[in-house]
Amino acid sequence: MMTGEAYLKSLDDGRATYFEGRKIENILDDKILRESAELIAEGYDRLYQPGEDAQSPLMDIPRDAEGLKARLPIMTAADIVANTTNQSIMTLMTAAGRMGHELPVYAKRIDAWVKDATKRDIRITECITDGKGDRSLSPGKQPDPDAYTRVVERRPDGVVIRGAKLHITGASLGHETMVIPTKAMKPGEEDYAIACAIPVNAPGVKIVNTSYAPRHEDDRVFPVSRQNHMPEGFVIFDDVFVPEERIFLNGETKYAAIFAHSLGLWERLGGLTFMSNEADELVGFAQLIAEANGLAKVAHVREKISEMIIHATLIRGALEAAIANCEIGDNGAAFPSELYINAGKYQAAAQYNMMCRHLHDISGGSVLTAPAIADLENNEVGPLVRKYMTANPEVDGETRMKLFHAIRDLTADAMGGWRYVTNLQAGGGLYAQRIVTRKHYDMERAKRMALHAARMLPENEAAE
Amino acid sequence: MMTGEAYLKSLDDGRATYFEGRKIENILDDKILRESAELIAEGYDRLYQPGEDAQSPLMDIPRDAEGLKARLPIMTAADIVANTTNQSIMTLMTAAGRMGHELPVYAKRIDAWVKDATKRDIRITECITDGKGDRSLSPGKQPDPDAYTRVVERRPDGVVIRGAKLHITGASLGHETMVIPTKAMKPGEEDYAIACAIPVNAPGVKIVNTSYAPRHEDDRVFPVSRQNHMPEGFVIFDDVFVPEERIFLNGETKYAAIFAHSLGLWERLGGLTFMSNEADELVGFAQLIAEANGLAKVAHVREKISEMIIHATLIRGALEAAIANCEIGDNGAAFPSELYINAGKYQAAAQYNMMCRHLHDISGGSVLTAPAIADLENNEVGPLVRKYMTANPEVDGETRMKLFHAIRDLTADAMGGWRYVTNLQAGGGLYAQRIVTRKHYDMERAKRMALHAARMLPENEAAE
Amino acid sequence: MMTGEAYLKSLDDGRATYFEGRKIENILDDKILRESAELIAEGYDRLYQPGEDAQSPLMDIPRDAEGLKARLPIMTAADIVANTTNQSIMTLMTAAGRMGHELPVYAKRIDAWVKDATKRDIRITECITDGKGDRSLSPGKQPDPDAYTRVVERRPDGVVIRGAKLHITGASLGHETMVIPTKAMKPGEEDYAIACAIPVNAPGVKIVNTSYAPRHEDDRVFPVSRQNHMPEGFVIFDDVFVPEERIFLNGETKYAAIFAHSLGLWERLGGLTFMSNEADELVGFAQLIAEANGLAKVAHVREKISEMIIHATLIRGALEAAIANCEIGDNGAAFPSELYINAGKYQAAAQYNMMCRHLHDISGGSVLTAPAIADLENNEVGPLVRKYMTANPEVDGETRMKLFHAIRDLTADAMGGWRYVTNLQAGGGLYAQRIVTRKHYDMERAKRMALHAARMLPENEAAE
Amino acid sequence: MMTGEAYLKSLDDGRATYFEGRKIENILDDKILRESAELIAEGYDRLYQPGEDAQSPLMDIPRDAEGLKARLPIMTAADIVANTTNQSIMTLMTAAGRMGHELPVYAKRIDAWVKDATKRDIRITECITDGKGDRSLSPGKQPDPDAYTRVVERRPDGVVIRGAKLHITGASLGHETMVIPTKAMKPGEEDYAIACAIPVNAPGVKIVNTSYAPRHEDDRVFPVSRQNHMPEGFVIFDDVFVPEERIFLNGETKYAAIFAHSLGLWERLGGLTFMSNEADELVGFAQLIAEANGLAKVAHVREKISEMIIHATLIRGALEAAIANCEIGDNGAAFPSELYINAGKYQAAAQYNMMCRHLHDISGGSVLTAPAIADLENNEVGPLVRKYMTANPEVDGETRMKLFHAIRDLTADAMGGWRYVTNLQAGGGLYAQRIVTRKHYDMERAKRMALHAARMLPENEAAE
Repeated sequence: MMTGEAYLKSLDDGRATYFEGRKIENILDDKILRESAELIAEGYDRLYQPGEDAQSPLMDIPRDAEGLKARLPIMTAADIVANTTNQSIMTLMTAAGRMGHELPVYAKRIDAWVKDATKRDIRITECITDGKGDRSLSPGKQPDPDAYTRVVERRPDGVVIRGAKLHITGASLGHETMVIPTKAMKPGEEDYAIACAIPVNAPGVKIVNTSYAPRHEDDRVFPVSRQNHMPEGFVIFDDVFVPEERIFLNGETKYAAIFAHSLGLWERLGGLTFMSNEADELVGFAQLIAEANGLAKVAHVREKISEMIIHATLIRGALEAAIANCEIGDNGAAFPSELYINAGKYQAAAQYNMMCRHLHDISGGSVLTAPAIADLENNEVGPLVRKYMTANPEVDGETRMKLFHAIRDLTADAMGGWRYVTNLQAGGGLYAQRIVTRKHYDMERAKRMALHAARMLPENEAAE
Repeated sequence: MMTGEAYLKSLDDGRATYFEGRKIENILDDKILRESAELIAEGYDRLYQPGEDAQSPLMDIPRDAEGLKARLPIMTAADIVANTTNQSIMTLMTAAGRMGHELPVYAKRIDAWVKDATKRDIRITECITDGKGDRSLSPGKQPDPDAYTRVVERRPDGVVIRGAKLHITGASLGHETMVIPTKAMKPGEEDYAIACAIPVNAPGVKIVNTSYAPRHEDDRVFPVSRQNHMPEGFVIFDDVFVPEERIFLNGETKYAAIFAHSLGLWERLGGLTFMSNEADELVGFAQLIAEANGLAKVAHVREKISEMIIHATLIRGALEAAIANCEIGDNGAAFPSELYINAGKYQAAAQYNMMCRHLHDISGGSVLTAPAIADLENNEVGPLVRKYMTANPEVDGETRMKLFHAIRDLTADAMGGWRYVTNLQAGGGLYAQRIVTRKHYDMERAKRMALHAARMLPENEAAE
Repeated sequence: MMTGEAYLKSLDDGRATYFEGRKIENILDDKILRESAELIAEGYDRLYQPGEDAQSPLMDIPRDAEGLKARLPIMTAADIVANTTNQSIMTLMTAAGRMGHELPVYAKRIDAWVKDATKRDIRITECITDGKGDRSLSPGKQPDPDAYTRVVERRPDGVVIRGAKLHITGASLGHETMVIPTKAMKPGEEDYAIACAIPVNAPGVKIVNTSYAPRHEDDRVFPVSRQNHMPEGFVIFDDVFVPEERIFLNGETKYAAIFAHSLGLWERLGGLTFMSNEADELVGFAQLIAEANGLAKVAHVREKISEMIIHATLIRGALEAAIANCEIGDNGAAFPSELYINAGKYQAAAQYNMMCRHLHDISGGSVLTAPAIADLENNEVGPLVRKYMTANPEVDGETRMKLFHAIRDLTADAMGGWRYVTNLQAGGGLYAQRIVTRKHYDMERAKRMALHAARMLPENEAAE
Repeated sequence: MMTGEAYLKSLDDGRATYFEGRKIENILDDKILRESAELIAEGYDRLYQPGEDAQSPLMDIPRDAEGLKARLPIMTAADIVANTTNQSIMTLMTAAGRMGHELPVYAKRIDAWVKDATKRDIRITECITDGKGDRSLSPGKQPDPDAYTRVVERRPDGVVIRGAKLHITGASLGHETMVIPTKAMKPGEEDYAIACAIPVNAPGVKIVNTSYAPRHEDDRVFPVSRQNHMPEGFVIFDDVFVPEERIFLNGETKYAAIFAHSLGLWERLGGLTFMSNEADELVGFAQLIAEANGLAKVAHVREKISEMIIHATLIRGALEAAIANCEIGDNGAAFPSELYINAGKYQAAAQYNMMCRHLHDISGGSVLTAPAIADLENNEVGPLVRKYMTANPEVDGETRMKLFHAIRDLTADAMGGWRYVTNLQAGGGLYAQRIVTRKHYDMERAKRMALHAARMLPENEAAE
């Protein structure tokens, strides 16, 4: 297995990374990208076990409900690129299981590649969302044929692909990227039915980064995001060659959607787990700041916190139900229930803004206007700031300020905005989750239940 | 065990039942009350097993998550008084378990009474909610001291009680009623800390009934409620004597709330189970009427049904989570998680109106204006009604009419109104569920998670 | 002008009315229909003024914002058929104004017919919504060509029409009905582009009624609906001849939608006015029952009432804005702003369930289970019921019971169901109101404002 | 009147301003504060008129509905400190009108000070919200008596005050600050009943600033906030002397709340005006980005935009209703209706998150991950970024990127977070607006309407 230090060294491999107009020759030279890389390095060190046979738990496959549940705290504690690595592995294994009978060659390549990736203990990112061009047109009908990633040349030993993948978390900081079609493809769109694994430093891969990392000289007022940011990559495949053994789908349009569906399941499981924890965190902040403000016993404040608790409990209930109702696939792997995962993810995303609204309502304007830690250190105003920032005398003014900083950082500043949008968009927007939930709901049973209630079923036919 | 026929005979026992101003000498003489009684009689026949040792499954106690889950379809299929019987047994056993150490005499009486009730295979109703008088005053401070049920006389062999219990489903149709304090009592309110079992025909018990049963001469336009209604009893204890062996609490204010809390858990489990099924039914109706209207593929209709599905799935998820996370009590009985039960019940109640709104929005005005079955039978207009009530040609006009009748009956007529209110109020209103959810939520953990996120925990202290 | 008595006599004109399977030979012979007719008769008496030149205010046309505003309390006080009469007049005058230039012959006929209707002081109902058949198909493509009302025969002196119009409030109790296309028609659908006025007793008109009127023997527990119900008519045109002078559109598909659009405006103005008053009423009930329960000062109860107040104020604000921003048409008539009317109506409909939920939450279960007035009169239980129905000692138990009866009647019984659905559906469902609001919103201005905010407008171009 | 240049010079007056730990000797030396100052300077230049008698329109007082309405676009175009100046003038004039009869000396001082401020054409900020200490205790019972601003010393010619005022927009950039009690005061809290005007450079005034201004080296990805930010001041009165002629209330607790109530009205009028425009802007962005994405015709996207339109229309309707129903005070000034203003402000604040959620849902993840303008300028990736950022071919990729930047800046970054919180908190949180709306609602009328509907009013008493 790899150590954090080895990981950091491994990044100097000629990858083409760009950030705010500049080409970044070595990631460790850029303050912001380096901070993100160090986060991943810490993740390596946390999981590291010595020995030839040691294997990262990120590569394990759960076999039952207990296994699924046991994995949640591991993934919660891990960094986001560790999560995408795990999701990629799970996605490929799921896809291999689903198409193995008809397309055994791909299943074998996946298996070999996963084994190798496990051995190398690499980090993998997920390249799925294409540029997509005009949303009202399918891939094959775009004015720009590259709007969806496609094969532009077929060679004896592989293919050349072209396109762009958007919103790729940590793309510049992984070792390889799993490239899969963003959606189902139709006959005639064979060139778009391409799945493969590509090293980040492969010639032609160019990654443009954005980051919500704070830019303040003194970033102590960003207690969360200063230590916890990961760039999003705009990944361009500018005619990249992919050798045969790394190609996992190549033209079989019928199977194009399998990868995205598999990924969606694991991405949404990850998302729901994250959002369940986040919801509990927001409840905790609401209670802490209510106490710090001296408002913890006020009726309308309690009501708001109770609503937050109910929300947090409902989405965790959906997560629990998804695990309790998991299914075991052909290959013995346990899959959480797609029905509950999607309904939970939908609710979590749709109501996230309510959570923040209540938190802001309880906190008050000091979320925005609490002075900085540096102001506390200024002799002329520091003592006065501390004095006047004290509310409930049992909570020190500085503690209260730090709570405000954390709440602002998490919900009312750059990282907060990033969360608003990613909570909605990760794993597809609200509309996508409605569709997927519906797809997995047993509508025929619901119709029978209605007909039974209406006494419109034949006597001898039970509703269930 | 008792048969339906034996049950119907058992009702002629001198009970004092009133309905819309009249005293009902024999329940079977009143059309509406008789219909309700027959519903219970059918329930008896469905569960009946011959033999001395046969025992109703209503009296069984689940021992684990599987046992809890297996019980749900039984209770779903049973009538509401079978449900209150089961809930009463569970409530008393739970309370006995909780107070058995300190007050063993009550635990023994409960045990003996439950055994006897099981043997006699009786139906039990739940007398909990008091008249309550002025809501801003506690029981001991009411202008009318009878506003909460209380002991007005103590005799060597028992007590005399006075008061009224409201919203007692099926009170006139059970054999006995479980009387318990509606809330916690404080020192000084000993007379109000009274729990006991009282036969419905005990002298001084007077029950005034209300019913949403349809009153139309031709009630075929009420396909659900004509076969499925149960009166609500306003139960007056006009100085009723209760012998010692039927008294389960008598003055120990500290324990007064145990009964209501226990009942609340089982009532809300029943409520959430019912509302989960109801939600699926409403989804089924929405889909059926969308199809009958020819609207099943219209985008905004699909969106609404998807939202209904997500709601139905979320509350079923809470039910599943409550069972998967059940606790085993001292006496070996399995209790569903109060946290998930309450959050689920809250959501189900709070969003029930949304479900009906979507259903009405999809259905259209014919929910109200679909002619009657009798109109179909009228030669002059029947064929025309059938013709013009046909929308999607694959669904017969009469079928569509019946769907409208059922939807109106369930959601937009007397029974519909009953459901709106009982879904909210059963097991306490929204406010009560917020409080109970909060009580069972692990707030300390949430606060630690927040402090961890804010980097405000000491380094070596993990969030979890 | 007509008196109430004259109106009642006028109903015995051979009209073909059906109710729950029976043909009603004389409307005054049926208890329920007679009650509705008497409501209209009272409306006649209230507006009656003697003299040849007297003219009903229902036929007046407002000329400015003040005129529009002055009309609101008149329409609020009037019965619903007086309202449909007024709306019909306004609709026809609006349509005449809009198509007068190109189709003067129809404008003249409308004018003549309105003058005559005014002189006769008749009541007019609105036949708009067709059977509609399969919602996914347009009128011309239905399997049953009669799914939308159409001309089946053209004669030298008029046309013969066939079809059915649904949800026609008071259809059996007006004198004439205004028949208009339910929606826009396309070239090829000329037979469906028919608007006209038809006497209710014209040969071939058959009306099947439904009613939410209470059927209890003692209907005093329905304090609102026992005095205030109006049947909904399922109006069948079984080949009805319409003479030329009563035809207001005949084949000009381009103008088919004008009538429905005009009606929609006035119907939604009426709807929003009604719902504004209804919202204030519900606030009043919430406050009264909170006081009667002794809950008026409890924080969460006050919060709920405050939310209800805000809702009531917002929709009244939309009504006020619609009037303050009225437009004056070619013919000098004042039209309320369609933008504000529709947004207000949407909000009122979408949030109506929230209003009822809050009211039920505050009221408690006695909304359903409060005994009847007749129970109060029973010597054995009457005094006990009164005693135990008293909560806040300053409000008599009987008064509290009557409040419960009224709340149940209005929001949780047959009339309540009728309101749930009609508030949503009248003037089109939520979807329709979204479309109409959008149509009247100044999107170009909004886009300019966005570009201005984004600094993407040329320097010299202001947002407004 | 003052020019922008004169204004900028006027800031070098010895004021004690702090920012992120540093004392700022001259505001124009700090990049961020200077940018804010230049915004105000531009505002001066825009309003400047030469001549002795010229008077800023910010100091005008509207006399009727037209006057109120005419003022809205002026205030919309003005910077925020121009707005607080106007609100301060209106607040003081309103308060003078309300207390003039009983306390004429204060009314006269206000009048004189306003005249002088008008003549000097200064900018005024609003110091209202105190530190407030423990929210569960009143001012007189705080552990720290300075938690609310108070008089600590009375001298023959004035008073000395101590305390802190929070969330004071632009405090460091105005000339004077209007200091008023944050809430009602009770007898015994005379020292807290202090209102006055204080120059920003008065000895003892210390202002600690926070700002959401972007800190990126290249701030072109913040197209809104880079040009439009204003610091929030934490204003400390460290024993500041106030001469008699600047004291507007001094110990008369009965009148303490008048100032805050007056300010609340004008602040919420400003807030509602701002939020109405903001809502239209968000609709515009939603439509523009839907078009740029090629999604403008997709059903669920249209639905979401329609909901946004309805929201924008409802709150503008409340604003229109507030103006149409304005009242004229004793002094001839027109006041918008508090009822409509507050209900509108509540809705705007409560639903703001829904607006952003819809906008983010329609936009997609590129709100976060759209590369920077600088990336476009990079030769290696610029052309590829432009290519792949193009969706609907009719909208250039760069235009689409700029829309994403603007949406992120406005709703999902530092300024976005500032808006989330200030929209909720400005003029008091949601709870405060509920209380104020309730206070101005005619509850007695609503109760009469309910009793009328329930037929519980005496016959001869009408509801209205």
